[in-house]
Amino acid sequence: MRRLRIALAQANFTVGDLEGNRSKILQFVKEAQREGADIVVFPELSVTGYPPEDLLLKPQFVEENLKTIKDIAQQIGDIVAVVGFVDLEKDIYNAAAVIYQHKIVDVYRKIFLPTYSVFDEDRYFSRGERIPVYEIRKCQVGINICEDIWYPDGPGHIQALAGAELIINLSSSPFYAGKRSYREKMIAVRGIDDAAFVAYVNLVGGQDELVFDGGSFIVNPEGEIIARAKLFEEDLLIADLDIESVLRTRLHQPKIRKEILQAEKVYKVFVAPPKERPSGFIKGRTEETPPLEREILQALVLGTRDYVNKNNFKKVLIGLSGGIDSSLVAAIAVEALGKDRVVGVLMPSPYTSKESIEDATELAKNLGIQIYTVPITDIFEQFKKELRERVWGDMPEDTTEENIQARIRGNILMAISNKFGWLVLTTGNKSEMSCGYATLYGDMAGGFAVIKDVMKTMVYKVAAYYNKIKERDVIPQRVFVKPPSAELRPNQKDEDSLPPYEILDPILKAYVEEDRSYREIVEMGFDAETVKKVIRMVDINEYKRRQAPPGIKITPRAFGKDRRLPITNKFVPF
Amino acid sequence: MRRLRIALAQANFTVGDLEGNRSKILQFVKEAQREGADIVVFPELSVTGYPPEDLLLKPQFVEENLKTIKDIAQQIGDIVAVVGFVDLEKDIYNAAAVIYQHKIVDVYRKIFLPTYSVFDEDRYFSRGERIPVYEIRKCQVGINICEDIWYPDGPGHIQALAGAELIINLSSSPFYAGKRSYREKMIAVRGIDDAAFVAYVNLVGGQDELVFDGGSFIVNPEGEIIARAKLFEEDLLIADLDIESVLRTRLHQPKIRKEILQAEKVYKVFVAPPKERPSGFIKGRTEETPPLEREILQALVLGTRDYVNKNNFKKVLIGLSGGIDSSLVAAIAVEALGKDRVVGVLMPSPYTSKESIEDATELAKNLGIQIYTVPITDIFEQFKKELRERVWGDMPEDTTEENIQARIRGNILMAISNKFGWLVLTTGNKSEMSCGYATLYGDMAGGFAVIKDVMKTMVYKVAAYYNKIKERDVIPQRVFVKPPSAELRPNQKDEDSLPPYEILDPILKAYVEEDRSYREIVEMGFDAETVKKVIRMVDINEYKRRQAPPGIKITPRAFGKDRRLPITNKFVPF
Repeated sequence: MRRLRIALAQANFTVGDLEGNRSKILQFVKEAQREGADIVVFPELSVTGYPPEDLLLKPQFVEENLKTIKDIAQQIGDIVAVVGFVDLEKDIYNAAAVIYQHKIVDVYRKIFLPTYSVFDEDRYFSRGERIPVYEIRKCQVGINICEDIWYPDGPGHIQALAGAELIINLSSSPFYAGKRSYREKMIAVRGIDDAAFVAYVNLVGGQDELVFDGGSFIVNPEGEIIARAKLFEEDLLIADLDIESVLRTRLHQPKIRKEILQAEKVYKVFVAPPKERPSGFIKGRTEETPPLEREILQALVLGTRDYVNKNNFKKVLIGLSGGIDSSLVAAIAVEALGKDRVVGVLMPSPYTSKESIEDATELAKNLGIQIYTVPITDIFEQFKKELRERVWGDMPEDTTEENIQARIRGNILMAISNKFGWLVLTTGNKSEMSCGYATLYGDMAGGFAVIKDVMKTMVYKVAAYYNKIKERDVIPQRVFVKPPSAELRPNQKDEDSLPPYEILDPILKAYVEEDRSYREIVEMGFDAETVKKVIRMVDINEYKRRQAPPGIKITPRAFGKDRRLPITNKFVPF
Repeated sequence: MRRLRIALAQANFTVGDLEGNRSKILQFVKEAQREGADIVVFPELSVTGYPPEDLLLKPQFVEENLKTIKDIAQQIGDIVAVVGFVDLEKDIYNAAAVIYQHKIVDVYRKIFLPTYSVFDEDRYFSRGERIPVYEIRKCQVGINICEDIWYPDGPGHIQALAGAELIINLSSSPFYAGKRSYREKMIAVRGIDDAAFVAYVNLVGGQDELVFDGGSFIVNPEGEIIARAKLFEEDLLIADLDIESVLRTRLHQPKIRKEILQAEKVYKVFVAPPKERPSGFIKGRTEETPPLEREILQALVLGTRDYVNKNNFKKVLIGLSGGIDSSLVAAIAVEALGKDRVVGVLMPSPYTSKESIEDATELAKNLGIQIYTVPITDIFEQFKKELRERVWGDMPEDTTEENIQARIRGNILMAISNKFGWLVLTTGNKSEMSCGYATLYGDMAGGFAVIKDVMKTMVYKVAAYYNKIKERDVIPQRVFVKPPSAELRPNQKDEDSLPPYEILDPILKAYVEEDRSYREIVEMGFDAETVKKVIRMVDINEYKRRQAPPGIKITPRAFGKDRRLPITNKFVPF
């Protein structure tokens, strides 16, 4: 009976850390060998980390990556390992090395290079041209990379028609909420279309704006998911594949039999001979897909943890206002790093309410984190005095004075950051980022913007979910019910400047994430003047977003490299 | 005698301003008609402005651009106009409409889509496939777009072999110092290779990080530049082309005669019939290429003017320190906007020298600009007091206290900006940006970073050139001779933290702009420890640059969208 024991090495690699990635790859290989696997597969560009961006334009980086893959190959014996790296032959390629018995037996080069959303692969790579099928332990295996499998007539299909019984896809596919179920459906359909097993191995971990959610899995020729790796953490998923069942399935499918007969021959490479089978049959674990709030929370926790740790920060610093945003960010930071690595700073002004101070203090107590309190009133008065005397005399107060307060707070947070070497986490949400309802160099000051891609209405949901799984009100109930306010002038409410979030957020989704026109959004049932006002706010605040810190992408269209609009732009969409 | 009077409309368009661009196109057409031109040619993507970036992902934007080109066509009579726009047919294309007698006679679609440096065209466009030759007034004309002409065997060559006597290239080619001479040489060689006239029309104006320098020109089949438009300003360049000379040249060149005989047929389109010739022969003007300092100064002036005006700011605000950087930025601002639109702010601290205040004051007087003086000492003391009492007690002072001062200044500038609606120009140079020798949210706070891509040694040269053309020391001599200092602690000098700029700048050029390896740079003759130190500074400060305001690209590799490195990056190149 032809059977293949496959191991999917869902590892957390770091961009540029060739040495660290090398030893992690070898550890996973060793573990897979202990489990008796015939083949162990790693994500796309495991050697370099993903995405390496302009590191790819440094010849030295490319060459050291080549040395690394050769060194890895030398250390691998009686197991087939498939490892993502950058190949070089006249130009560079996003490639997978097929390694067996200390040799790179063959190299597959990615054919479809994504250049949209956060991807820029046409900027770096040439596309591959060969579509080989490998013989491994008497089984026919097609290997391809990430985007390649998103095309129904792509290399996976061609490999299947040329006889491949198992299609392996190496991915580094960034998370957004809801993407996993889309991806699983798509791959399941590939399994059915090709009447083949499909093994999909995905990267896990945070890299600047991106989180890779793992969730590697295997589908059988009937399109059923037969094994699933963990989400948002490293995992080695092992499963035995009954390769003989492929022919059985195909014999029942006249369509694919016809296609196979008509298919062109492809390049075949012999990789590894048959081997005595270990006894027993590993079925592979499966995990359920979590609800939306949970996967968003997990993504935010992992993205924060990896940004902080991979950039070697000991602690993080958060300005606590007593509002829902900073409360959620503090909770996420504690989940990611533990309470001893999170410090809160209260910076009350003349307009800070007693309730806000109580709520922030209670939150800090519930989380068990240290807090500093640095009042800003005297500094604020000093600024106002100098500017009145030297610049604007008795001109009336306006948003200028609000921004001064926010920037004093930014300065205090950054001063503590500088003094102790801690990272400031900013607390702005996507609704604010969209409308520019934030102070540049003020509350936008910091190294990492945890909830930058989370709309305000979702902030409430994720915060409620967090309290629910903690089985207590870590974030105090009052924080959920009081009206949101920046507290930068007496009795200020967000709704003085913005439409209610229940109305604002769907308009923003339509305009920012879906590029719908003014007319379309009005036809969705929103008030025309409100839509105009929101669009205007989004468009004129591009300059603020350009200077915002990076934050974690959790939607199909995040700010940052996912959405590239000019600042100088006179297009008025109404 | 076959002769063609061509007009190159080197216009300054604005991204997204479909209505403004439309009326500017029609004005240029009218002017070209008055001059008796047979054909008037506009730059790449004139209708939308360049680069429109993600505006291209908005269906509404693409559709309004189509309406605009149709409306333009309707208004054009007895002249052939070639206008860049976005074509839509199942997908979108970077295209040129060939208009005659109120109709779009044909559309050429760009074939080579640049996806490197600041370009992302594969993100947006599909590539064209047709390579037509147009008959215009009995002359055979090939039209193509920007990148198309950079390939020796590209569409221009194919058009020439198929009979085109004139190749027209519509470009939006961003400036860097020295690019023009490279571009002129390349196009001249195309003229020789193809034994054809080549008319190259380029955009002019500033767009966020980019400046388009104009400098449109025409070469004859001998590769001589026979007409040159102005640099860094709008222009309509008219010249009569003696098209009959093309055959004469070709008959003397056996190589191209052979190639022409073997060439495949291409799609031919009849555009416009012959017409009685106006008398006289317009030879076309030529201008000389300026020295490096002059073209850099012109680029900075135009980039600043267009950013400020296209974004509707009335005035700009500059923190004046008495140093060379802020002095040059103030001078550029006055050149760009006039003295009444520039305001300087002096913000002395306890460490500001008497000389610095004198130099800044003298500069402001020489430029004739208004200044405010807002001392920061009392605010600084207040910050230190609060932070000592509440956070760090009697820990020793360090760079934290330096950064606090810089951020107080940032807050003051932004407060004045907020109060009056003026734009803050930042004054950091490329040497500082590279090494992170700048305070995030401090001296980096502002909307536009004028000299962000100018190395310190070049700042001195451009400033000296500026004084020279002004024929007096507008920037006081002492500013050139005193050692550079941030003046954030007693007796501070840049050289306490950085290598001398004469050593630093070439190392930065090698590492940042040319991606040379550590080893290569050391082999260039620099001290190994110094090179390591510089590389380390560049690499760890990626996060600061990510939050920097946009500034004008003047080198082949600027920060911003030209250089895309991850923040989280463990690659150590030594």
